[in-house]
Amino acid sequence: MAEKKISKTIEAPVNLRDLTICDATVQMLEKARRDGVETAFDRAISMKACPIGADSACCKHCFMGPCRLNAKDPYGKVGVCGATIDTIMARNFARAVASGSAAHTDHGMGMLDLFREVVKGHAPEYRIKDVQKLEQVAQSIGIEVEGRTPEDIAMDLYKELERTYTQVEGEIPFAQRAPKKTQETWRKYDMIPRGSMREIMEMMHRTHMGVDQDFENLTKQFSRTALADGWGGSMVATEISDILFGTPKPVAVEVNMGVLKEDHVNVIVHGHEPNMFESMLVSVNEPTLIQAAKDAGAKGINLVGMCCSGAEMMSRHGVPHAGNFMSTEAILVTGAVDAMVVDVQCIKQGLVKVAECYGTPLLTTNYRCHIEGAQHIQFNETKPSECTDEMVIKAITRFKSRNKPIEIPKMRNMGIHGFSHEYINYMLGGSFRGSYTPLNDNIINGRIRGVAGVVGCTNPRVKQDWVHVELVKELIRNDVLVVQTGCSQVALAKAGLLTPEAAHLAGPGLSEVCETVGMPPVLGLGSCVDNSRILIACTEMVKTGGLGDSIADLPVAGAAPEYMSEKAIAIGQYFVASGVYTVFGVTFPIVKDTKFHDMLFRRMEEEWGLGKWGFTPDPYEMARLMIAHIDKKRKALGIDKARERVMMDFADRQKLEA
Amino acid sequence: MAEKKISKTIEAPVNLRDLTICDATVQMLEKARRDGVETAFDRAISMKACPIGADSACCKHCFMGPCRLNAKDPYGKVGVCGATIDTIMARNFARAVASGSAAHTDHGMGMLDLFREVVKGHAPEYRIKDVQKLEQVAQSIGIEVEGRTPEDIAMDLYKELERTYTQVEGEIPFAQRAPKKTQETWRKYDMIPRGSMREIMEMMHRTHMGVDQDFENLTKQFSRTALADGWGGSMVATEISDILFGTPKPVAVEVNMGVLKEDHVNVIVHGHEPNMFESMLVSVNEPTLIQAAKDAGAKGINLVGMCCSGAEMMSRHGVPHAGNFMSTEAILVTGAVDAMVVDVQCIKQGLVKVAECYGTPLLTTNYRCHIEGAQHIQFNETKPSECTDEMVIKAITRFKSRNKPIEIPKMRNMGIHGFSHEYINYMLGGSFRGSYTPLNDNIINGRIRGVAGVVGCTNPRVKQDWVHVELVKELIRNDVLVVQTGCSQVALAKAGLLTPEAAHLAGPGLSEVCETVGMPPVLGLGSCVDNSRILIACTEMVKTGGLGDSIADLPVAGAAPEYMSEKAIAIGQYFVASGVYTVFGVTFPIVKDTKFHDMLFRRMEEEWGLGKWGFTPDPYEMARLMIAHIDKKRKALGIDKARERVMMDFADRQKLEA
Repeated sequence: MAEKKISKTIEAPVNLRDLTICDATVQMLEKARRDGVETAFDRAISMKACPIGADSACCKHCFMGPCRLNAKDPYGKVGVCGATIDTIMARNFARAVASGSAAHTDHGMGMLDLFREVVKGHAPEYRIKDVQKLEQVAQSIGIEVEGRTPEDIAMDLYKELERTYTQVEGEIPFAQRAPKKTQETWRKYDMIPRGSMREIMEMMHRTHMGVDQDFENLTKQFSRTALADGWGGSMVATEISDILFGTPKPVAVEVNMGVLKEDHVNVIVHGHEPNMFESMLVSVNEPTLIQAAKDAGAKGINLVGMCCSGAEMMSRHGVPHAGNFMSTEAILVTGAVDAMVVDVQCIKQGLVKVAECYGTPLLTTNYRCHIEGAQHIQFNETKPSECTDEMVIKAITRFKSRNKPIEIPKMRNMGIHGFSHEYINYMLGGSFRGSYTPLNDNIINGRIRGVAGVVGCTNPRVKQDWVHVELVKELIRNDVLVVQTGCSQVALAKAGLLTPEAAHLAGPGLSEVCETVGMPPVLGLGSCVDNSRILIACTEMVKTGGLGDSIADLPVAGAAPEYMSEKAIAIGQYFVASGVYTVFGVTFPIVKDTKFHDMLFRRMEEEWGLGKWGFTPDPYEMARLMIAHIDKKRKALGIDKARERVMMDFADRQKLEA
Repeated sequence: MAEKKISKTIEAPVNLRDLTICDATVQMLEKARRDGVETAFDRAISMKACPIGADSACCKHCFMGPCRLNAKDPYGKVGVCGATIDTIMARNFARAVASGSAAHTDHGMGMLDLFREVVKGHAPEYRIKDVQKLEQVAQSIGIEVEGRTPEDIAMDLYKELERTYTQVEGEIPFAQRAPKKTQETWRKYDMIPRGSMREIMEMMHRTHMGVDQDFENLTKQFSRTALADGWGGSMVATEISDILFGTPKPVAVEVNMGVLKEDHVNVIVHGHEPNMFESMLVSVNEPTLIQAAKDAGAKGINLVGMCCSGAEMMSRHGVPHAGNFMSTEAILVTGAVDAMVVDVQCIKQGLVKVAECYGTPLLTTNYRCHIEGAQHIQFNETKPSECTDEMVIKAITRFKSRNKPIEIPKMRNMGIHGFSHEYINYMLGGSFRGSYTPLNDNIINGRIRGVAGVVGCTNPRVKQDWVHVELVKELIRNDVLVVQTGCSQVALAKAGLLTPEAAHLAGPGLSEVCETVGMPPVLGLGSCVDNSRILIACTEMVKTGGLGDSIADLPVAGAAPEYMSEKAIAIGQYFVASGVYTVFGVTFPIVKDTKFHDMLFRRMEEEWGLGKWGFTPDPYEMARLMIAHIDKKRKALGIDKARERVMMDFADRQKLEA
């Protein structure tokens, strides 16, 4: 369903500035051409996307096929087994949700395993860093905290959250955090997850040949599977990470490739889980290793992040961030990277060849992710520094043998990151009456029109960062407060939007609020697994009052304008199933004018009272769709007039000033 | 990898006898043509299989693609992310294993749920029927049985087997049933499943974009996932079914469409789980319902099975069986089916239209499997007859309104079914010294050359039943004892091979054994989930002695000559990972002359000491490959000479007789 190609979409012959608006990446792509190095940008140009697969009109769930239907005449034929286009698309979509949910859920399981070991005292290099957050999370699911030790509370919390995984009946613990009415809707449609692993298993069963062949029934189960991610695996990952490593607070950080230092040993960590990265932060500060770096002729060791664990460490510890998904190959072209360390998810296999060209060690660390041609050094939480120290030594060795010209783009962009949902509470409400009331008040009085989550990947099928940046600019210009995570947040940070000064780009209402509070109009919340923070923020808005009874009532919308992963589909579906209108760009794996399309793009909202999907590759159209939805919700809440008054006031004031 | 089209493969223009060797199905396909009804056979002709997908050379695990590589030049290009052909094929294969394993594991979970309810007394219509089996299974995993009540033992067994699902660390309980050496090999390569749900989740994570990109590491994890099926989900399903409903014992049953009765209300149950079918067996024997049928003008109610739950009920209770997977549409064309009741798996969506044409109610019963256009009547184990009674009433109603000519093919084939691995023990060893010793002895002395499991689906891409039948005939002619399950078993039953009289088709050694014992040369073990019985039988052979220390040492081989489902891939992989050489027909979703192909087709055996895959669509070549493997294993065991002597003896005897 990428029916409308917009002009910014990549088309040969190629001007590198058509591929990305990231100047650093352009500079490196130029160098890559000179060096004869291929990247995913090049492959996206030469690899024509399969049009049938892109429409999800093919099925290879059995070996009577693979069957290909005709997206132009979707009901013209069926698969060999008789599967209709709706069955085929719904099953394909369901598997994307299953894989994306499995990624986050498995990540969350890793965090929970570590939490258990920490609580039991088996992982002495880690500890519970944020006791306040521990208590908050425990209380939120009914665990008594008064007069108890953190260890006691932690053990109870561990046992309770373990249910998210092991349970096969009942409801996962965090589901009870959602607004009551949202929970009721879920129960009505059998959508509350029993256990995250069970939902994934059942989804894989039901998408097997000859099982569920009713797109509506499949939609219920992949919604439940997605909710087992958002309110299950992802939320466990975020909350446990905060408890162990600290809840992010706003911090000024530099992003972009200019954070590399030619005279330092540069170590990049790129991936999704904080455990190894936290340990790496310890290793690069180890005096003996710093000395070893100095002995090798370096001024020190420079640790920078990329991708999602980078966004998490940036938010939590102010570790500089070098760029998002589509810059991971490009940055190796600087020649300045002495080691690229990865864990899981979004690690391009193409990195192997680029790293080879520049003599950069590409190091895998998680048993789940080996890469042919990369070197594997297993990370173990019970003796974490063993692995990270060894990797730093490898980086130092590479620094010593640097033998090619180094070119580091000069770009560096300062911004404020680390707006956890708890901090939003504090920031807007103040330390004595921490609350979302001021946010709700400003939405009700119309200064803030609504809130948009703009998240997700970058994708070489569209101009890197451009769709993110244009969309966000358009949203804030229309007084929509934007919250961000992951690669999208980094795109906007590079564009300078994560600064309080960017308030001047906002509409009059939002800009007034930003200036009063001293906050940017675009708030960075962390990694993609941290989208669960947005669910909690939405819930707080409902609980604070005045904006309806369920998440579906809120004047909010979501977008992943340059998504590329199945995780994005899982996230999109958990937002939709939680009540949020969610618009995706690039392409959408569904044929229009089909019953399944109608299910996702209309019926989930109109009939089930949840959210719905939207699609357009055009950022301006995307903003229009999201704002129209926000206005629709404002009208339903009866607060549309308020905003008109605010706008009137402002226009009047302008007139007076003129 | 369907590079070699054999002459029997379907090609237009179509002679119906090229589609199937099942005369009943041919007759119904003729009628379908007259009636203007389309079946999967027709769609297989008109739907050209996607050649890129068939080679597994495409990837749609992210939205930078879908990427298509070139199977003719597999290393000529990579995906946009840089994924190589080996990564792409291994990930696709892994997802098929995940889905297939999920299907069996979810089925097993359903059985375990019922077992718990029965043990707790919450499902009064069910009870523990086979206490001896309960004790055997409990003992096999170290549960004390001496002097304890069945209820106590059952509760312990339930708790222990629940770990198969809920556990996230350790080893699933039934893994300890495997030969010690097989377990050691598994441990060496991290293949013992921790918990079945965890392995499926992790598999879906690791096949996500940018995670595991090393075909060898992926092979370990999809082997673990498959073992979580074979020694986990499937084995739980089989063992609990036996405990609740009775372990099969040999029973003479009729198969083929002639089991329908024109003057009866015909109810077909088609699917995979025994619970609802067991309840249906009660309902059709309900005097009030029989009376209602008689009041409607019928002579009675005729219950028949199809597909796998059919095979299970045939083995366990002698319920007649009407045909395998590729006959499920054809049988509706008789017009004699008054209700087709389904649960999960292998239910073609195409049944809806065919059922509509003949006014047959198509009834779905499991919440996991709704079908657009079918009627759903939810089955509930706590009041099972509510659903099955209602369905019988619907069938009676349809009987009354029959308004189209009925044509039932006359074919009926009697055979002996129900050879559980326990019965093989008894049959060969006698009731006083039940043991596999006679089997092993006959293998060692060469009368039986080896054992082959021939299992799996039927597939409209090849001539129905023909590859099964020709392969099995060739195997037994060469003194290979054949064990069977599922649709393959039904194919051979229709060909008359499941009778003691078929011994005359066997080679001299096997025929001598069959005649002595009075058994058929082809033993039917049940449904496809019952392939776990073959694992136990193999284990018993190892434990009995004289045939090596691990399953990989045995002179055995497996085949799924007409497979079509992802479950078949999962089953194949758990056999390969357990040590069995396994040959598939039809097509194989891997490009030849690639590293991943070498991994599956050679390295797993040579380097890891497990089994390996084979492929050919030709039944004679398939038999040759399997026999060559059996002979290789005989030679390694040092028993190749024994067989030469036996053959010599026989030839000498023939000479004497001449």
